[in-house]
Amino acid sequence: MALIAPSKRVRRTPFSPGVEAAGVSAYTVYNRTLLPAYFQSLEADYAHLKRHVQIWDVACERQIELCGPDARALLQLLTPRDLGNMRTDRCFYVPMVDASGGMLNDPVVLSIGPDRFWVSIADSDLMLWIKGIATALHMNVSVHEANAAPLAVQGPRANALMARLFGEAVTTLPFFGLGQVRFEGQDLWVARSGFSKQGGFEIYVEGDRVAMPLWGALMAAGADLEVRAGCPNTIERVESGLLSYGNDMTMADTPFHCGLGRFVNMAGLDRCLGGDALRKELQADPTRMIRPLAIQGHMPTCDRAWPVVTETGDPVGQVTSAAWSPDFKETVAIAMLDRAVWAPDTRLRVQTQDGSAEGSVRDTFWN
Amino acid sequence: MALIAPSKRVRRTPFSPGVEAAGVSAYTVYNRTLLPAYFQSLEADYAHLKRHVQIWDVACERQIELCGPDARALLQLLTPRDLGNMRTDRCFYVPMVDASGGMLNDPVVLSIGPDRFWVSIADSDLMLWIKGIATALHMNVSVHEANAAPLAVQGPRANALMARLFGEAVTTLPFFGLGQVRFEGQDLWVARSGFSKQGGFEIYVEGDRVAMPLWGALMAAGADLEVRAGCPNTIERVESGLLSYGNDMTMADTPFHCGLGRFVNMAGLDRCLGGDALRKELQADPTRMIRPLAIQGHMPTCDRAWPVVTETGDPVGQVTSAAWSPDFKETVAIAMLDRAVWAPDTRLRVQTQDGSAEGSVRDTFWN
Repeated sequence: MALIAPSKRVRRTPFSPGVEAAGVSAYTVYNRTLLPAYFQSLEADYAHLKRHVQIWDVACERQIELCGPDARALLQLLTPRDLGNMRTDRCFYVPMVDASGGMLNDPVVLSIGPDRFWVSIADSDLMLWIKGIATALHMNVSVHEANAAPLAVQGPRANALMARLFGEAVTTLPFFGLGQVRFEGQDLWVARSGFSKQGGFEIYVEGDRVAMPLWGALMAAGADLEVRAGCPNTIERVESGLLSYGNDMTMADTPFHCGLGRFVNMAGLDRCLGGDALRKELQADPTRMIRPLAIQGHMPTCDRAWPVVTETGDPVGQVTSAAWSPDFKETVAIAMLDRAVWAPDTRLRVQTQDGSAEGSVRDTFWN
Repeated sequence: MALIAPSKRVRRTPFSPGVEAAGVSAYTVYNRTLLPAYFQSLEADYAHLKRHVQIWDVACERQIELCGPDARALLQLLTPRDLGNMRTDRCFYVPMVDASGGMLNDPVVLSIGPDRFWVSIADSDLMLWIKGIATALHMNVSVHEANAAPLAVQGPRANALMARLFGEAVTTLPFFGLGQVRFEGQDLWVARSGFSKQGGFEIYVEGDRVAMPLWGALMAAGADLEVRAGCPNTIERVESGLLSYGNDMTMADTPFHCGLGRFVNMAGLDRCLGGDALRKELQADPTRMIRPLAIQGHMPTCDRAWPVVTETGDPVGQVTSAAWSPDFKETVAIAMLDRAVWAPDTRLRVQTQDGSAEGSVRDTFWN
């Protein structure tokens, strides 16, 4: 494997000193920002995440701030989800689409003040899309990247660790609940959320002043909980069916293809720029959709789409993410598959860069 | 140094098999695509580039295709450069700005047919900005990423190598001239351009069919010219003053700050979305600008902005790219500096992550 070459263009984060001190082994780049990929190894990190608690530098989830009288109307142009019932004490998962209904990003939106929102983005420069529309329509709204960096606390012991630092109250946050905690005199937004299904929180750290102190305080408070530096883990996220924009969904897929049809509402479609395109799809069943696929044996690294064919060789889709699962003793995979092969236990062939393997469609993801 | 973790999201290119076979040592990520950073070492690659000829996988320079009756009008909204005299036999360097005049990208535009353009982008998802504007204004234009991957042939022996494969005619292309060559039955756009000042070409390869055959043919034809796989080289590009979007310029900088004022025309400003903002700047002299800076001795890797201060400690700018130059025996750097310190030989202090060093403003870049 090759090294990653440092440059200013691939941005460090306020937590980079902590990540480096913890001995990061590999990075990926996400929103032009460094994101750790593993520390000890993918499998050792995975085993630890499922039992203990980890601190993740996910500053690469950049916060696009929309602020101004037209902020809410602008947001509604971007998504087929009706934002009429968006609450200030909840995160909101908001698939965003282009005029063809193609997925541009699948951010979480935080309502952090009157006419003020943070759009916590997956891996695409969604700000440019939002700014382009706001500029062309002369909307009264400022669109910029906030100086805010999420730090995730993930794992079954996340409640215990957070309670030590912030008191028991934070552990009463419901899933996707949004609140605030105070650290060294600064109020920080905190949500029960994160890119694993092991439970946990994301703390949105504004500015640099408290970033490394917070990292250090969490590490110190969790020493006997076996807290470690970690990062989103490919094995765990595939087991959990957590989709990754750029891997499992792209601009070529609509929310229906991505299994996100429940976030498409008639009230949203009426105002969304992709409304007309998606309304047509609403009337037909989707032709392809993301499905879990179990593959027998170890596979090479899934660094490209793997074609999926039937046992008679007909192309029926592609695998977009895959990893060997130590717990389930098979390769767990996310695949975009044609409707004809959705039935659980359908046997398929997966064509990797190193040869083909046998796969079987599952009804549900593993976690 | 850490490894780079492969995933589908960080895209491979049609030339990746060639890059891997040539023993790439480090990558960066550019437009969510793998870009080699060095093969042997930064310094060995540099010495070779300046004497021989290299083949570069620069597929990460994605081609955003604008096609349709409104394509030219849309392009003119994006840039303060007047596109009225854009020719079909020339590449066109087109700084693109937001409504505040901030740089969003500095692509090269190729006019490849009636109402059909390729915008060959630097590192930002400029397509989302263009699509956002086209969508909001209901323009009659298609905006999408073309399936086209540039392959660069760079170095003093580039003419010799290209002539062997395509005949002498290609060597008569002037700088930024645009033409076509034919390879295995396919016509390919070719320009005299590239991200070095050692001379050379960029060949725009559509589809996958001829990509690796072309790579192989160039390698075979250039064996006695000591052809090698290479990539944009940080040392050479800093010596040459070739600016890198994301490193040396960002959305916070206008074309004037980037020394690109000569691409701002009154006719362009009249139609550009950033016209009003830039017209104001046109009347005043820029307060800061990119300057070459020589630093004594070896520096750490420039993976973040380095503050620059006067000898009395006043902040006057930042270094955005730097590398030790074996030829000039000093660290060559690109800095964004306040007007007060532009005079050649002004002595400044550069604050790196490992301590400070002495720098001196230069009148011109090194190459």
